[in-house]
Amino acid sequence: MPLVYVTLAERTTSQDRRAQIGDAIHRALIEVANAPEDDRFQVINEVPLANLIYSPDFMGFDRSPSVVFIQIFFNRDRLEALASQAGRSVDVKRALYARIAENLGAAGLRGDDILINLVEMPKENWSFGRGELSYPPAAASSTR
Amino acid sequence: MPLVYVTLAERTTSQDRRAQIGDAIHRALIEVANAPEDDRFQVINEVPLANLIYSPDFMGFDRSPSVVFIQIFFNRDRLEALASQAGRSVDVKRALYARIAENLGAAGLRGDDILINLVEMPKENWSFGRGELSYPPAAASSTR
Amino acid sequence: MPLVYVTLAERTTSQDRRAQIGDAIHRALIEVANAPEDDRFQVINEVPLANLIYSPDFMGFDRSPSVVFIQIFFNRDRLEALASQAGRSVDVKRALYARIAENLGAAGLRGDDILINLVEMPKENWSFGRGELSYPPAAASSTR
Repeated sequence: MPLVYVTLAERTTSQDRRAQIGDAIHRALIEVANAPEDDRFQVINEVPLANLIYSPDFMGFDRSPSVVFIQIFFNRDRLEALASQAGRSVDVKRALYARIAENLGAAGLRGDDILINLVEMPKENWSFGRGELSYPPAAASSTR
Repeated sequence: MPLVYVTLAERTTSQDRRAQIGDAIHRALIEVANAPEDDRFQVINEVPLANLIYSPDFMGFDRSPSVVFIQIFFNRDRLEALASQAGRSVDVKRALYARIAENLGAAGLRGDDILINLVEMPKENWSFGRGELSYPPAAASSTR
Repeated sequence: MPLVYVTLAERTTSQDRRAQIGDAIHRALIEVANAPEDDRFQVINEVPLANLIYSPDFMGFDRSPSVVFIQIFFNRDRLEALASQAGRSVDVKRALYARIAENLGAAGLRGDDILINLVEMPKENWSFGRGELSYPPAAASSTR
């Protein structure tokens, strides 16, 4: 159920590198946010560098043309279920961002080049195939 | 007021097919979600197949490289107004997904290749022209 | 913290014009929505005209192939902090849309070609670098 959009500048990555970026983000979602292993849906959007506008130093970071914007659409319910075990949902989010950066770092990305934005919605807002409601209310006791 | 982003792989569709995809989604929004006939705003994003990462079988579906990711940004108020007539908002969502798949199926898409994500926001979050607030609170009794 | 996606048709703008569009939107966010000067993250997505589907006249406007779809992802907390000074959050939104159109108009865009959609999220949903939570709850008294 995470739907991930990655935006980066054309010609700054190889196809292998882009696959690694997708892998790193997906592993973080599995490891920290309890996403199922095979629940992977990602779009990598390559735009001309001039169309990827970023502050080089906002909040004291040192961003380069290799910056990646990561936007994650995620079930609010899933995060809240995790939070009820782990503490506050903000702790789950903090751990998720940290793990994404750690995994991307292992793939060779600079931490300063990673921007993450999370958008949450209720679980009824997903259909993974055939127009079926994927997480009906009757399944509320399961978070899958 | 729906703003629809469709992401699909380059070279998997003709321009006619893409127009049919847009039509099918828009008709579902009119038929089920009470969108005005002429309230149609859609972006079709074609990315290299390697940049469209999808699980072939998550939740038991059988996805192909013709998979389409559909993301719909929609007024929460509109859905809630419908729900107050039709029952629960989840029923409106369920009917919407089913109709999208039905209409896309009539256009020749495989149901297993359809992924839908809905993002809701209050009606004050739209401006359709000249920087005007399109749905001011004073018009709260109308859902248009 | 605003993350802005602008979608427009290929070959309708020069690179200079696209930079002006980005500038105009960013200045509006600074002037009206209290965004920090250097908090600028924008993606300009150019798609084939046939993939940018818009109603030419929804709500009485007169849209052209130069239409721009602007989607702004923004902290709900920031808007609410502004609203507590300025009145209602709807007034902040109204002023923001108006200023965006005014600034884009000064850059030569037709007001009828401007569509704006705002998506809000809590401040915990951002990481601007190194996987750090950029707006931790402890900093709740500051809106930065």
